[in-house]
Amino acid sequence: MNCEFPLHKAFKFIEPGPVILLVTSENDKPNIMTLSWSTLIDFNPVIGCVLSPGDYSYEILRRTKECVIAIPAIDIMEKVVQIGNCSGSDTNKFKTFDLTPIKAQKVEPPLIKEALANIECKVIDVDFVDRYGLFIMEGIKAWYDAEKTEKCTFHANGDGTFVIDGETKNLKDLMIKWQIFI
Amino acid sequence: MNCEFPLHKAFKFIEPGPVILLVTSENDKPNIMTLSWSTLIDFNPVIGCVLSPGDYSYEILRRTKECVIAIPAIDIMEKVVQIGNCSGSDTNKFKTFDLTPIKAQKVEPPLIKEALANIECKVIDVDFVDRYGLFIMEGIKAWYDAEKTEKCTFHANGDGTFVIDGETKNLKDLMIKWQIFI
Repeated sequence: MNCEFPLHKAFKFIEPGPVILLVTSENDKPNIMTLSWSTLIDFNPVIGCVLSPGDYSYEILRRTKECVIAIPAIDIMEKVVQIGNCSGSDTNKFKTFDLTPIKAQKVEPPLIKEALANIECKVIDVDFVDRYGLFIMEGIKAWYDAEKTEKCTFHANGDGTFVIDGETKNLKDLMIKWQIFI
Repeated sequence: MNCEFPLHKAFKFIEPGPVILLVTSENDKPNIMTLSWSTLIDFNPVIGCVLSPGDYSYEILRRTKECVIAIPAIDIMEKVVQIGNCSGSDTNKFKTFDLTPIKAQKVEPPLIKEALANIECKVIDVDFVDRYGLFIMEGIKAWYDAEKTEKCTFHANGDGTFVIDGETKNLKDLMIKWQIFI
């Protein structure tokens, strides 16, 4: 079950650089795209996502300026890759991939029930969209499914292979300058 | 040994979102910073890196517009975290952390011999530096140490813990739309 998650800690879902799902919606038609070109920009969180003009979500995101960034775990890994290999122009992705939309609180696009975490976002800057497809968005509400047993996320290698989270190493004792984040 | 790597494939080092090292140089003084806020912007590769005005490298990178992005593996993981917890203003990082600078071919900052890969970069756009600390850079030469046995990279969780690459999953058969990258 998705429960509210402290917004100021939501950057931790993005910082490791996992494959993410980006949910948009227009005229009551939600769509999902798979994306691995993203970065944190600030801790609020502010997030940068790079889309291509060829992506069905590109113009919708520019027009609506709202999205949900969902963090998938490996239990839906194959679906995530399949979502990235078809287009919302002719595919109802929630239906086709048997994913459950949940009404978001502050934006029109829905959360994805099966994701580990969801961040409701508003696009705050489109000045770099024409040049680089780079959308700057701010997370305004975050959700996390603490009951989900599968917590492993995964990263794209860019060649159809994906690397799954392995061991976590605790190096907090070396973070002498950044104690504030520990 | 670092050997030349095809530039058009170098995006694969950045796409998984690993912790990276950013090497700058001014007045023959090379410096290294640790960074985990980065993303691919294009395949050339064009890479976006977010620095803070408080980072010693920030003004140097803006002035010199050159850097090397080095991809560390877990054999130097502790050094990478330590590099991110001190400042080039009072620390010679190559010397302090016993890393070996190698002369780059197209930029002033050196490669790091102990890294798995190095990408020589030119900053091509600073229009978003004031607003977000976001430097847009283009890779112009790439190097890879194929003889290095340790190839595992790692990702920052943002709290002093780091997740190490685990199993690689091959889902190339699902990449029906993106065969060109396989």
